[in-house]
Amino acid sequence: MSIQPSNPAPPFNVVRCSHVELGVADLERSRAYYVDALGLIETEQVGDTLYLRGLEERNHHSFVLVESREATCRRMGFKLGSEADLDRAEAFFRQKLLPTEWGEKHAQGRTLHVRDPFGMPLEFYYTMDQCDSCMQLYGRYQGAHIQRFDHFNCFSPDVQGTYDFYAGELGFRLTEYTATEDTPEQLWAVWMHRKGNVHDLALTNGYGPRLHHVGVWVPGALNIIHMCDVLATTGWLQAIERGPGRHGISNAFFLYLRDPDGHRTELFTSDYLTVDPDLTPIRWALRDARRQTLWGHAAPRSWFEQGTHFAGAEIRPPVVEAQPIVAP
Amino acid sequence: MSIQPSNPAPPFNVVRCSHVELGVADLERSRAYYVDALGLIETEQVGDTLYLRGLEERNHHSFVLVESREATCRRMGFKLGSEADLDRAEAFFRQKLLPTEWGEKHAQGRTLHVRDPFGMPLEFYYTMDQCDSCMQLYGRYQGAHIQRFDHFNCFSPDVQGTYDFYAGELGFRLTEYTATEDTPEQLWAVWMHRKGNVHDLALTNGYGPRLHHVGVWVPGALNIIHMCDVLATTGWLQAIERGPGRHGISNAFFLYLRDPDGHRTELFTSDYLTVDPDLTPIRWALRDARRQTLWGHAAPRSWFEQGTHFAGAEIRPPVVEAQPIVAP
Amino acid sequence: MSIQPSNPAPPFNVVRCSHVELGVADLERSRAYYVDALGLIETEQVGDTLYLRGLEERNHHSFVLVESREATCRRMGFKLGSEADLDRAEAFFRQKLLPTEWGEKHAQGRTLHVRDPFGMPLEFYYTMDQCDSCMQLYGRYQGAHIQRFDHFNCFSPDVQGTYDFYAGELGFRLTEYTATEDTPEQLWAVWMHRKGNVHDLALTNGYGPRLHHVGVWVPGALNIIHMCDVLATTGWLQAIERGPGRHGISNAFFLYLRDPDGHRTELFTSDYLTVDPDLTPIRWALRDARRQTLWGHAAPRSWFEQGTHFAGAEIRPPVVEAQPIVAP
Amino acid sequence: MSIQPSNPAPPFNVVRCSHVELGVADLERSRAYYVDALGLIETEQVGDTLYLRGLEERNHHSFVLVESREATCRRMGFKLGSEADLDRAEAFFRQKLLPTEWGEKHAQGRTLHVRDPFGMPLEFYYTMDQCDSCMQLYGRYQGAHIQRFDHFNCFSPDVQGTYDFYAGELGFRLTEYTATEDTPEQLWAVWMHRKGNVHDLALTNGYGPRLHHVGVWVPGALNIIHMCDVLATTGWLQAIERGPGRHGISNAFFLYLRDPDGHRTELFTSDYLTVDPDLTPIRWALRDARRQTLWGHAAPRSWFEQGTHFAGAEIRPPVVEAQPIVAP
Repeated sequence: MSIQPSNPAPPFNVVRCSHVELGVADLERSRAYYVDALGLIETEQVGDTLYLRGLEERNHHSFVLVESREATCRRMGFKLGSEADLDRAEAFFRQKLLPTEWGEKHAQGRTLHVRDPFGMPLEFYYTMDQCDSCMQLYGRYQGAHIQRFDHFNCFSPDVQGTYDFYAGELGFRLTEYTATEDTPEQLWAVWMHRKGNVHDLALTNGYGPRLHHVGVWVPGALNIIHMCDVLATTGWLQAIERGPGRHGISNAFFLYLRDPDGHRTELFTSDYLTVDPDLTPIRWALRDARRQTLWGHAAPRSWFEQGTHFAGAEIRPPVVEAQPIVAP
Repeated sequence: MSIQPSNPAPPFNVVRCSHVELGVADLERSRAYYVDALGLIETEQVGDTLYLRGLEERNHHSFVLVESREATCRRMGFKLGSEADLDRAEAFFRQKLLPTEWGEKHAQGRTLHVRDPFGMPLEFYYTMDQCDSCMQLYGRYQGAHIQRFDHFNCFSPDVQGTYDFYAGELGFRLTEYTATEDTPEQLWAVWMHRKGNVHDLALTNGYGPRLHHVGVWVPGALNIIHMCDVLATTGWLQAIERGPGRHGISNAFFLYLRDPDGHRTELFTSDYLTVDPDLTPIRWALRDARRQTLWGHAAPRSWFEQGTHFAGAEIRPPVVEAQPIVAP
Repeated sequence: MSIQPSNPAPPFNVVRCSHVELGVADLERSRAYYVDALGLIETEQVGDTLYLRGLEERNHHSFVLVESREATCRRMGFKLGSEADLDRAEAFFRQKLLPTEWGEKHAQGRTLHVRDPFGMPLEFYYTMDQCDSCMQLYGRYQGAHIQRFDHFNCFSPDVQGTYDFYAGELGFRLTEYTATEDTPEQLWAVWMHRKGNVHDLALTNGYGPRLHHVGVWVPGALNIIHMCDVLATTGWLQAIERGPGRHGISNAFFLYLRDPDGHRTELFTSDYLTVDPDLTPIRWALRDARRQTLWGHAAPRSWFEQGTHFAGAEIRPPVVEAQPIVAP
Repeated sequence: MSIQPSNPAPPFNVVRCSHVELGVADLERSRAYYVDALGLIETEQVGDTLYLRGLEERNHHSFVLVESREATCRRMGFKLGSEADLDRAEAFFRQKLLPTEWGEKHAQGRTLHVRDPFGMPLEFYYTMDQCDSCMQLYGRYQGAHIQRFDHFNCFSPDVQGTYDFYAGELGFRLTEYTATEDTPEQLWAVWMHRKGNVHDLALTNGYGPRLHHVGVWVPGALNIIHMCDVLATTGWLQAIERGPGRHGISNAFFLYLRDPDGHRTELFTSDYLTVDPDLTPIRWALRDARRQTLWGHAAPRSWFEQGTHFAGAEIRPPVVEAQPIVAP
């Protein structure tokens, strides 16, 4: 296991994770879920594509839902620091002989489509159309009062290798990680950030690459409690997969939901500031149950096993065999 | 001053305060305020009258808004324990030579209209049409999440005399009171209940009788904070008159609002259980500023001086001259 | 099944449930749990007995913990309306040929010990020594901010018969109940009150009589979330048995805890006002999983099966065989 | 007025504001306030100096309280990105002919003392001794559950000039600002950040330089409500100066407190993420009362006029004469 420090001078500047593009079977049904139930703001619908954002977000979209036969994750979107960073990103991926393509995206500036060495489809951009913040339009607050996009969490068949790429090359910074009890110990999961909280991208050992969930930030635990009550009494009971609870890792108060196509969303709050360059990552043992949940509740098997496929990505079995303790 | 115990065997059984009937100038404007902003449930509109209730209330109405030239309080409604109590109430008021009349009220059973010895118009009933509780229809929760009607608070020109009537005759029980520093000290304000929390009816020394406010119960302080944010950003900023804050008396976390006609509503939470028959009333000195607010904020002059007139009630100056400390 | 109305003129007036007396193996360990962790106020220790109360309670005690070889529930305490009610209670139980005895209790006035027809040990009193309320001593708020004792919940081998006694004779009022799918349907569980919220006493079909739990009232869901975090990180993780969650029945936001002797406590909030004499009880089908939990979480087997024995009470199997759905 | 963009390539990298060093008259009294009442964690006392930190902070200190005859702010501390940044900072300030000095500080690595062109005393460092995070030691949570140091807010006699220095040279990024109604309009107040939320440093037009307040971040509004209750009932009522309320600027839910020496602390929550390099600053008109408070409450005169002097800094009158609307 190596938790080498992140590259202090990455080839291009990733500001933060920014948005996700998901295939959904029925746009109306997805709107009912994401907008009417969860309370995301609908920016607009263009053809078969629905653009949503959180209450504080001025970016045109953080969720892009495309009506499609395949319920895949089509792109994980990251904002770069400048137009020049886009060009530097293209050069970097080309030099690695990885696929790159300039995409045309509604309401975004120049957009670079790439695939990382493990098959995950990414898109990079610098500018996006700006909308009004709804942060002080309190009359529009609904559902979970989702403020903003927070992070991606992916199953990875090679956590060490993927970590080495994102931290060692792209400058993602490690905040917390899980190590196995093997000799030598192996890296089993990592939480990495660019924007200054616990993560923009987390990786967990498993069949992959697959998207485990996207996380959205909500102001507090009561927003999540109320969301449970609303979901349970408006026909969305089945959406509740796990929680509410407290993760040991990241200190998050969490709720995991499944949308009508099975895509998982985490309502997430109460992590911490991580901008210090000398922040020491927190190590958790794979066998430490508090890692998953401070309060001792078991997660359902689906949470450990199911995830969203990435469009066009081949799935491989995990390199590491160690498994967490799952409640019976 | 006398805080004689309440009559343990009152002539008829008042279960609780139940509803208020208010004259309003513009029904649409009042609906926009009470339903769209505050989040009360609209049961129905019948002609020029709007019937509203709280989320947990199965009674057809706790707010009756009648479009009218006069922005008065037309009735304070109390639920009695049985039909027989209604007849006993009629006999009691007649024997006192006070006005009584059997009223016809939409969605209520037999209703007795009376006026107390100080001119306040009351109505008594036993049964009301029942509606669905919205308590577990969480998708309908809006605004302040108002659960139920809680209390009346009135200016009284004769707090001692009015107390003697409601406690000494009708069996209202004292929970807290304010006394002056006069020699002998005089009763300046009282909080009296029937239903088991701090009050169904409070009286404060002042020009009256007038309605100071009706109180509605909300689950917690965060509902009130959110209500402030919503009112301030949806065109209702002027509705906020005082608070949020913490009363010493009753321990209430409060917010005082004025509706479009000036009727005052208190959003109220966090008082305590008072069913014990031997509960000792809590005494507050008029000069103790913590009585009004634990945190030291001054109330605006309007809060001390303005109130809703009762239809047909003559207003008299207060018997007691002592005044609370008002911040400059 | 019969859900006959409660006796409107009971032989004596039960004001509310008031306190519990529990045998505990180690008083220091129990103090560490109830006082240091949960935040109950310690009124005093007298010999091998610890007296605790909630923040708003002026009564000397609502928890009486007696160091003892047997971890039993020794008494369920109820407050009566007057000294005369005590004498009426004695006459009533004697006439039923049920055991009665005048007990000597620290800090209580005259106390009557009885056993109900099903073997549950009760004590009745009218006056208790009064202490300062800690409601506005916010510096003493700790743990879950427990405000007051709320209810008893018992396993009963004969829910119908026990209901008939408490409602039909003693005037407890039904608020919610569970019925089986048998033909004819049978009463499976009941929630009955005297004080004006959902319950003072609940009964669930099962081996009994046994105490399932005592409920204490807390202001809101965040107090419960914080309590989970505190318990999980101060060595009390094992105390968390079930929750936090939302019951369909009573609308309670709940957390179930086990003390060091296995006695179960429910942290409870967000039920509703029930003082209306014509309140219609809410019926739940035994097969309706929302009854137990609105959010779809299974309760652990221990929660369905384990309880505290009553001192001196023989345990019998339940009359009704129907069982709720238990998650695998 | 010029709100020129911040320098994208500043001479040295300021990571974030980090700590404050305050003179206090009585260390015991200050400990009673900051530790016992507010709930900051005491790292250690060394001689006449007390070192405190927030619950999530692993840095040794964010508050340094020095028993002293003068109740001044001795230093505003900022963390730099590396040791090399310290040397670059020294070179930069020297080249500006501003005072620099290598200070010896307990529990910090190399520390550079400088004074900005307006007389404000700063200190820069890269490494600080690390302590355990108390974030998951929930048994230690007290008072307002303060998580971390958030920002400095200063009176400035020359907001435009000071802004030009911090943004135009040091790379602080503007998030919100207030402009006068003069022709041409003038910059009246600015909020600037380095760490990714609304501010590390804010400046308000006024006699200065003086420290208006330091802000600390708390999880939510209920922590602030509870803090008010605790302060008001434990002898610290006079500490409450303004709030709780909601600022229009930054969307902060706030409470302003004065410590025993008059130093002002803001309990602060609910601002937003600002890492996007193309974030458009929000403009507020000086006459817009919502800027100060969304709910319409007036701030007391003391809040506009009083502040902590910086040790050794001469105070000058403000360049801009425009004044905000102050409630009568």
